[in-house]
Amino acid sequence: MKIDLNSDMGEGFGPYRLCDDAALMDVVSSANIACGFHAGDPETMARMVRLAKARGVGVGAHPGFPDRLGFGRREMPVEADELRQQVLYQLGALTAIARGEGVPVAHIGFHAAMGNMINRDPALADLIMQAIRTVDPELIVFAMPDSEIERAATRAGLRSLTLFLADRAYDSKGQLVSRKLPNSVLKDEATVRARVRQFLEYGTVTTIDNRTIEVRARSILVHSDTPGSLELARIVRSEIEAAGATIAPAREVLA
Amino acid sequence: MKIDLNSDMGEGFGPYRLCDDAALMDVVSSANIACGFHAGDPETMARMVRLAKARGVGVGAHPGFPDRLGFGRREMPVEADELRQQVLYQLGALTAIARGEGVPVAHIGFHAAMGNMINRDPALADLIMQAIRTVDPELIVFAMPDSEIERAATRAGLRSLTLFLADRAYDSKGQLVSRKLPNSVLKDEATVRARVRQFLEYGTVTTIDNRTIEVRARSILVHSDTPGSLELARIVRSEIEAAGATIAPAREVLA
Amino acid sequence: MKIDLNSDMGEGFGPYRLCDDAALMDVVSSANIACGFHAGDPETMARMVRLAKARGVGVGAHPGFPDRLGFGRREMPVEADELRQQVLYQLGALTAIARGEGVPVAHIGFHAAMGNMINRDPALADLIMQAIRTVDPELIVFAMPDSEIERAATRAGLRSLTLFLADRAYDSKGQLVSRKLPNSVLKDEATVRARVRQFLEYGTVTTIDNRTIEVRARSILVHSDTPGSLELARIVRSEIEAAGATIAPAREVLA
Amino acid sequence: MKIDLNSDMGEGFGPYRLCDDAALMDVVSSANIACGFHAGDPETMARMVRLAKARGVGVGAHPGFPDRLGFGRREMPVEADELRQQVLYQLGALTAIARGEGVPVAHIGFHAAMGNMINRDPALADLIMQAIRTVDPELIVFAMPDSEIERAATRAGLRSLTLFLADRAYDSKGQLVSRKLPNSVLKDEATVRARVRQFLEYGTVTTIDNRTIEVRARSILVHSDTPGSLELARIVRSEIEAAGATIAPAREVLA
Repeated sequence: MKIDLNSDMGEGFGPYRLCDDAALMDVVSSANIACGFHAGDPETMARMVRLAKARGVGVGAHPGFPDRLGFGRREMPVEADELRQQVLYQLGALTAIARGEGVPVAHIGFHAAMGNMINRDPALADLIMQAIRTVDPELIVFAMPDSEIERAATRAGLRSLTLFLADRAYDSKGQLVSRKLPNSVLKDEATVRARVRQFLEYGTVTTIDNRTIEVRARSILVHSDTPGSLELARIVRSEIEAAGATIAPAREVLA
Repeated sequence: MKIDLNSDMGEGFGPYRLCDDAALMDVVSSANIACGFHAGDPETMARMVRLAKARGVGVGAHPGFPDRLGFGRREMPVEADELRQQVLYQLGALTAIARGEGVPVAHIGFHAAMGNMINRDPALADLIMQAIRTVDPELIVFAMPDSEIERAATRAGLRSLTLFLADRAYDSKGQLVSRKLPNSVLKDEATVRARVRQFLEYGTVTTIDNRTIEVRARSILVHSDTPGSLELARIVRSEIEAAGATIAPAREVLA
Repeated sequence: MKIDLNSDMGEGFGPYRLCDDAALMDVVSSANIACGFHAGDPETMARMVRLAKARGVGVGAHPGFPDRLGFGRREMPVEADELRQQVLYQLGALTAIARGEGVPVAHIGFHAAMGNMINRDPALADLIMQAIRTVDPELIVFAMPDSEIERAATRAGLRSLTLFLADRAYDSKGQLVSRKLPNSVLKDEATVRARVRQFLEYGTVTTIDNRTIEVRARSILVHSDTPGSLELARIVRSEIEAAGATIAPAREVLA
Repeated sequence: MKIDLNSDMGEGFGPYRLCDDAALMDVVSSANIACGFHAGDPETMARMVRLAKARGVGVGAHPGFPDRLGFGRREMPVEADELRQQVLYQLGALTAIARGEGVPVAHIGFHAAMGNMINRDPALADLIMQAIRTVDPELIVFAMPDSEIERAATRAGLRSLTLFLADRAYDSKGQLVSRKLPNSVLKDEATVRARVRQFLEYGTVTTIDNRTIEVRARSILVHSDTPGSLELARIVRSEIEAAGATIAPAREVLA
């Protein structure tokens, strides 16, 4: 069994760093690289691509809203076509930088508020997925299972890779519990380890109200912009390896 | 005889416009589209690509320094690799937006201070041209005749299209007279018309010290960010047509 | 009778201009100067202050959201304290630049989405008005009559100057009809002239549903970022002068 | 004997932090707060002012070039008046935010490339100091001893506070050895302690070529944007206290 382990990378800017990207790049198999709008800059992007290439990590685009101050977490009332061009712009920028290093962009995953906006609106999701397809029909879209983004990717003829979050509580509908609610983020190492094991062995997760539901996912996402993210990624990795699964980038998981 | 007529386009931003891009797009055969650093934004870029596509105008990237306040006219002490990534980033961004409209990016021409910096340093010019080649070896580089950029493009195996400026004074070495010097910019319509005619008929220009020198050029560049630029472009176009030459985008001129 | 005539000024940025600020400065008595967030930059602000000083025009701050691409027209989900600091920052920046020219900042008026957000929330309006008062208790707040901003200014012990818009339709509650609705913006010169006369003579306006309501206002606001704004300002000015009223900056109107 | 201990603070932006500002604020007596151009934003600035106020730390403005990507370290070819307005803008912005907290801005110290540019040109230094004086003639200018900035401050009738850098090598002319040269930055704790002691006891420093020269300084500057800066600041503080000197903000040192 092959599974992907991915994280957002290169979310610094100029003199700033949000995490130890080089260390985290040793742990993941896919890197979602910020593309210069909510975070990132050309030089940082190139540094990420080089780190990924040296380790065989899959390179992906992680576009966000053009709001560096708000780190792309604030929703912006942009028109559908404006959003489409923002996605194309960022995806193309990373594609060229990656090509400069002889590496393809393999996947795309949306950042924060931009992802939320696309995921709420099937027509918008269709528009964005069709745009992505014009750049490269082989691009893999990272998405939560049964999300609008996953469905739109399928409609556009794009493959998608579904995500599991090992450190976030799920409700009985399979949705993530809002970060604003208590116990939505799991910080206890033993708990996270147990959840990764359960997911790998049974394909299930225990919900916040103590039910067991199926989780259809082929990749585990670890956030990089929180304290302890590197340690969390290492825990997830060691559990995957202990379970005998192979950690591989998105293209290999879907091959 | 085929000749290209090109201008910088889409150099507005958000609510701002520098010129009547739609009207100018009716006159030129190649559009150098600002890529979001010194000017431009994703939506403006898409608007330019659509205007160009509707008129059969060639789409080109016009990358500049990330200095919107200074409009890319201030030199920035960036490292060679940083500059390389800035060029790739902008070129890739436009490429994806153009692909979204089903249009290829045909050429690239550098803006202001970025162009000057590249043109002063053969090693830097080589680095940039090799980077451009990784994105698309068919890209045509716009350059002044006998410039470092032209030579580096040739070394990298890229085609280049040489430029003539009908409203700028030349010195006897074939270099443009600095804008800061008197009589460096020609504003009289009859003079500009005469220069276009002389260039088309004899391939020469009369220098500021009244010599006649050869000008090896296949495209006439009209700046768009000055008052009267649209009128100037129309004058140049009418002279080209009167001379019986065919106005065509870069790819056709070089075909 | 003294009345103020005000307009938003200096809403360009770097190489960009939204209107002929110098010409408009000849017509108005108060200038609301963009402070570098939605538009404007230090040099443009200083230019506006110098133009205003030379003409005896009152200098005011026109703060907006930090969203140059969206020109401050997009609402941003900022926290109350963040908004407070954004207002203080911009007001202070203009105050220092004006002091460098030996001119006081006399008033403050909010731009677009920032104004709308403050005007919807009395507690937020109180927070902002108290912040303004810490900078200078003599500052005059520009506000629509009976708005939350006007009321909060009064509660904070700040004077306010109420606005009339001569080219916008009013509903029978005295509110502006949304720009998105038909006939919300009046473009016919004779109509605008008639409205200014009616306002000056009777202190009333005829609403979109043909009623006559009172308008309590001491200043007429002319937008600068629309085509024909300069001409509109001149029309309003000529009508005020024809009515025998004196055009004077905010401080004199309230003196 | 009173001496000031100062550091650059609030040089983060949005989600980014360059150092543990709150911890560093416990150590210094003057805080040079980034003003939103090379680093900082309104909310971060307010946070710094609040931290400083709670500890009795002096609040100062730390203006830089508008180049967030380059962190204000790249020189920009701005005109003298443009630079003047950039300084006024940033100083005014912090002044208003500080006033919102009931705190005065006591001093100003320039960041990186902006400071270098001013310090090279007596006429420019005069222009800037006169501008600062228009905002508040009581402002104290932080400067290296015998620098153009110090002299221009004196000519403008402003007080200045001279700086000593405990972790930087000096040449025999009393100038800092460039960071690009070997041994220019001292990292050994014992060495730094010894230099602080020597400076406090004898007012001298041992130069890189082993001479002993006088250092006329009333404040020790500790950079905050390097690893170990907090520890360095604590070392300097403990040595000052061990020497029996009193650590006090700029205004008290000069009182």
